[in-house]
Amino acid sequence: MDWECVLQGIEASVEPMRGQGKVADYIPALAAVDPRKFGLAVVLGDGTQSCLGDADELFSIQSISKVFTLSMALRVVGDTLWERVGREPSGSPFNSIVQLEHERGIPRNPLINAGAIVVTDHLVERLGSSKTIAELLDRIRRLADDDSIKVDQAVAESESLAGERNRALASFMKSYGNIKCPVEETLAAYFCHCSIAMTCRQLARAALFLAFDGCDPISGQQMVSSQACRRINAVMMSCGHYDNSGDFTYRIGLPGKSGVGGGILVIAPRHGAVAVWSPGLNQAGTSAVGSLALEALVKATGWSVFV
Amino acid sequence: MDWECVLQGIEASVEPMRGQGKVADYIPALAAVDPRKFGLAVVLGDGTQSCLGDADELFSIQSISKVFTLSMALRVVGDTLWERVGREPSGSPFNSIVQLEHERGIPRNPLINAGAIVVTDHLVERLGSSKTIAELLDRIRRLADDDSIKVDQAVAESESLAGERNRALASFMKSYGNIKCPVEETLAAYFCHCSIAMTCRQLARAALFLAFDGCDPISGQQMVSSQACRRINAVMMSCGHYDNSGDFTYRIGLPGKSGVGGGILVIAPRHGAVAVWSPGLNQAGTSAVGSLALEALVKATGWSVFV
Amino acid sequence: MDWECVLQGIEASVEPMRGQGKVADYIPALAAVDPRKFGLAVVLGDGTQSCLGDADELFSIQSISKVFTLSMALRVVGDTLWERVGREPSGSPFNSIVQLEHERGIPRNPLINAGAIVVTDHLVERLGSSKTIAELLDRIRRLADDDSIKVDQAVAESESLAGERNRALASFMKSYGNIKCPVEETLAAYFCHCSIAMTCRQLARAALFLAFDGCDPISGQQMVSSQACRRINAVMMSCGHYDNSGDFTYRIGLPGKSGVGGGILVIAPRHGAVAVWSPGLNQAGTSAVGSLALEALVKATGWSVFV
Amino acid sequence: MDWECVLQGIEASVEPMRGQGKVADYIPALAAVDPRKFGLAVVLGDGTQSCLGDADELFSIQSISKVFTLSMALRVVGDTLWERVGREPSGSPFNSIVQLEHERGIPRNPLINAGAIVVTDHLVERLGSSKTIAELLDRIRRLADDDSIKVDQAVAESESLAGERNRALASFMKSYGNIKCPVEETLAAYFCHCSIAMTCRQLARAALFLAFDGCDPISGQQMVSSQACRRINAVMMSCGHYDNSGDFTYRIGLPGKSGVGGGILVIAPRHGAVAVWSPGLNQAGTSAVGSLALEALVKATGWSVFV
Repeated sequence: MDWECVLQGIEASVEPMRGQGKVADYIPALAAVDPRKFGLAVVLGDGTQSCLGDADELFSIQSISKVFTLSMALRVVGDTLWERVGREPSGSPFNSIVQLEHERGIPRNPLINAGAIVVTDHLVERLGSSKTIAELLDRIRRLADDDSIKVDQAVAESESLAGERNRALASFMKSYGNIKCPVEETLAAYFCHCSIAMTCRQLARAALFLAFDGCDPISGQQMVSSQACRRINAVMMSCGHYDNSGDFTYRIGLPGKSGVGGGILVIAPRHGAVAVWSPGLNQAGTSAVGSLALEALVKATGWSVFV
Repeated sequence: MDWECVLQGIEASVEPMRGQGKVADYIPALAAVDPRKFGLAVVLGDGTQSCLGDADELFSIQSISKVFTLSMALRVVGDTLWERVGREPSGSPFNSIVQLEHERGIPRNPLINAGAIVVTDHLVERLGSSKTIAELLDRIRRLADDDSIKVDQAVAESESLAGERNRALASFMKSYGNIKCPVEETLAAYFCHCSIAMTCRQLARAALFLAFDGCDPISGQQMVSSQACRRINAVMMSCGHYDNSGDFTYRIGLPGKSGVGGGILVIAPRHGAVAVWSPGLNQAGTSAVGSLALEALVKATGWSVFV
Repeated sequence: MDWECVLQGIEASVEPMRGQGKVADYIPALAAVDPRKFGLAVVLGDGTQSCLGDADELFSIQSISKVFTLSMALRVVGDTLWERVGREPSGSPFNSIVQLEHERGIPRNPLINAGAIVVTDHLVERLGSSKTIAELLDRIRRLADDDSIKVDQAVAESESLAGERNRALASFMKSYGNIKCPVEETLAAYFCHCSIAMTCRQLARAALFLAFDGCDPISGQQMVSSQACRRINAVMMSCGHYDNSGDFTYRIGLPGKSGVGGGILVIAPRHGAVAVWSPGLNQAGTSAVGSLALEALVKATGWSVFV
Repeated sequence: MDWECVLQGIEASVEPMRGQGKVADYIPALAAVDPRKFGLAVVLGDGTQSCLGDADELFSIQSISKVFTLSMALRVVGDTLWERVGREPSGSPFNSIVQLEHERGIPRNPLINAGAIVVTDHLVERLGSSKTIAELLDRIRRLADDDSIKVDQAVAESESLAGERNRALASFMKSYGNIKCPVEETLAAYFCHCSIAMTCRQLARAALFLAFDGCDPISGQQMVSSQACRRINAVMMSCGHYDNSGDFTYRIGLPGKSGVGGGILVIAPRHGAVAVWSPGLNQAGTSAVGSLALEALVKATGWSVFV
């Protein structure tokens, strides 16, 4: 593959769209980001890194962190995790709390807020709030081979201040017995991992193991079991993009996870991992320009799990 | 791959479960089927066929027909199809009509009843009711290389008699202007294609093109465009099994479509197509023993789109 | 009570608002009505009639007919009626079909469309479609002491042509076994009774028995039992105005029923019956000017069931 | 009215049912109450008090307190109250949080938990948490002419410990800006007023003003305006009994409010006030034996707002 050519093609198709979409504004730290930012990083199994634009600039990974907590929880907690969270798409944004009520406090999947809070609660129950974050960071740093990765504390504090809705979800699940720790303790860890700041390059590198059956192809380390890896990819494919997960699967054809900070992580099994970042969001809360870049990328590379 | 060994393993793991699940009983023709029936057929790209049990017995393909009407409609109608039907999972069985109301008559995806009725309505609008069925059958016969495939008229009549709920869905969408033909004309075609009878062997053979980027690897004929093929697989993966689509993706890791007659069609890109049939259904309406057989098959073969 | 003064007060408060609201336009016969029309009739227990504006002009009573079919059904069918329909408010307009699904085909109450179709189905099951309408008309004519009252056939035909949504509701309930007659037979009767044309004067006169414990105070005839009368009033109070029933109870404080033709019937127990008509509807589908007139009327008369 | 005879009739019809229903068990203080308890008190406009059974035993008034906070808030806040809470029935128990989401944090009415929390928040915003409770108690003591009425602190603490669901509702509304005070401050006042302990006799006496257009007929004091009184009664009639408000209106025909402690308050305009208590609840959360007693009472007295 001529990556220079692929990246040029992506850049050309993205350029006229720069600045599109609506930047998340529920906390100041996100609202302040320049909407024209755009970065992309592709990391292949042989370690090759191909980058574009602001690929080395830190951004708030937000919900993409749910992939890392899920993978950590599958190792720490194992399959009993699934007794307290499902793996079905939620169908609709407005359904989140509807379905929580209908399904008596069991969230639909670990990649929506309610489900990620349950995953975090599992970890906090075993490790406590600070050790959960410490171990998670340690794990991500090793994966990305970069010790500088950390939580953006200002973002974490803003998240907590603006976090009434997550508080509502947690209290609601606690009323059904599906949160075991004190609500504020679990939320403290949750707000922290959502506030991890990474670059596209770090993110793609850190997630590379998911494209190679759970084994990081560069370090050779098995990060999760082969089965767990397939399942994380499966859950990303079914549920990774809120209520436009089906459309993402249709357009991109690869498992992925988007965050409200404008980042999208995508896994191309047997090939590599891709991280893209552009802060303007489409109506469903996924990066608008990031999605376009990924469409251009899969068109150029032919990558798809469906062929 | 030692297929004899794979099939023996599947047979052994399925045998103690034979007869499990609940046979669909809303029409007599389905209720009368022996719950211990079990058949499986794997057709590979080189034409190899490996079969088990009742793989040559006819059964009612029911909702699996939606994959064939969708692929026909993408050829006949093209992408304007998506103006009248979405491609998101529906989330919940009880949501079907809820969401139709919430989303003003636009069904979630072409693989739930409401969406398949819209797809059928597109075809009936262009071809009329009988020609739609004639062309669909012709297409399936060519794909399966078997001119004997036909609609089971007794089942189609039963479907129509028991079809008040589908009538409700169609009338409801018509009240939003999303059904163009007379309700009964569109439903006549819909009930017919759901009542096509096929064997596992015929079904796997007919769907082989979906595993090879839209091109039937034996005849060499391009049945749908490469892009359409990927998208059909994507829609099957997101929405192929009602409200347990996420769980199916998690367990099996391959795009597929189940029918209430107990059949499941599964596509293994670059490998082949699998059809399994066993009439007892699990709570979500998917063949119970069929699912187990597919879990055994993907374990033995390692097939998954996620590695 | 100085009725001349009361009526003048109502007229004065209504005059600047004439023409407000949105005339129903789903069928031509309703869309064509002059939005400035306004009529009001009060009929007291001693037979006194006080009228205003277009009180002698015919209009389509639409959903107000549900009060008469309910009272007829309680006489013909008795309390077994309640096995197939509830008496709770529906909560939300969009809930109608949601709740039908959630509650397995049992509509919330007899004054929403789904419930009135079930009530009609009860009558059609016993009397057939045409005899149901014949007896209903006979009953209304006797009550209003006016043999000219009849179904507007042009409206009934338009209703049927535009009736896909009611067809959907009926088919949906039939799929749960809660419609006994053929859908089209029950709907024929339903569309007819919704298309009865009456004047405000006729309507108030016909409903007078509901203000006097079921006994028409002028003829002395007991039209429904005392208990049935209280219950019809109770159902009107809880459910008479779609999803603004609570607001109507709060503002007007009397049981009533509104229709999409712009009519509202209100019962003042121990005093009399009021019919008001003005075709412009508010967001909840109740006559905008009609509601204002009723607010002025209860303010002037002090009528309320809550004092 | 021969009250001795009326009470004997009620006692006879209730006796065989004593102990029916399910005592609320979400907090120990409620779970411990003897399910065979039954008390009833009728207080008429002339001050006559007629009592039965355990009419002088204290019980937790729970949601009945919402009637007193609403009446206090209408005096303190006035009609601006309605900008932050509706007056429509909620339709379904499961809808509470569904509708909160659908209607962006505005609760359906002031008698469901979410709505009562908003009413309390209004008061706490103006008076602070402790002064709200002090003034409310002062008001109730004057109405009941009994200075001993107080909050059961043990119950209030249990409510707070078990109050995750109310915490969820409050956080959820706060995320929409519809709670102004800190969640825990508003909830502290809310849990307190729900934990007021009263006897049937005190309760009926305290609510007597609602049967006489807002004016306590014994002290002659106007407690709320005539208009506010009608509206409180209207809201009780539409929304006083969760999702069986319509059925209560149908069976009893009087405005009322039930509490999970087994109490029911009923207003008979122009006649008097009734309080009944029996801890076993029916499926909708209303006292089972209490409802039967009220049915017997309205049958014997003929009381109904609909005649």
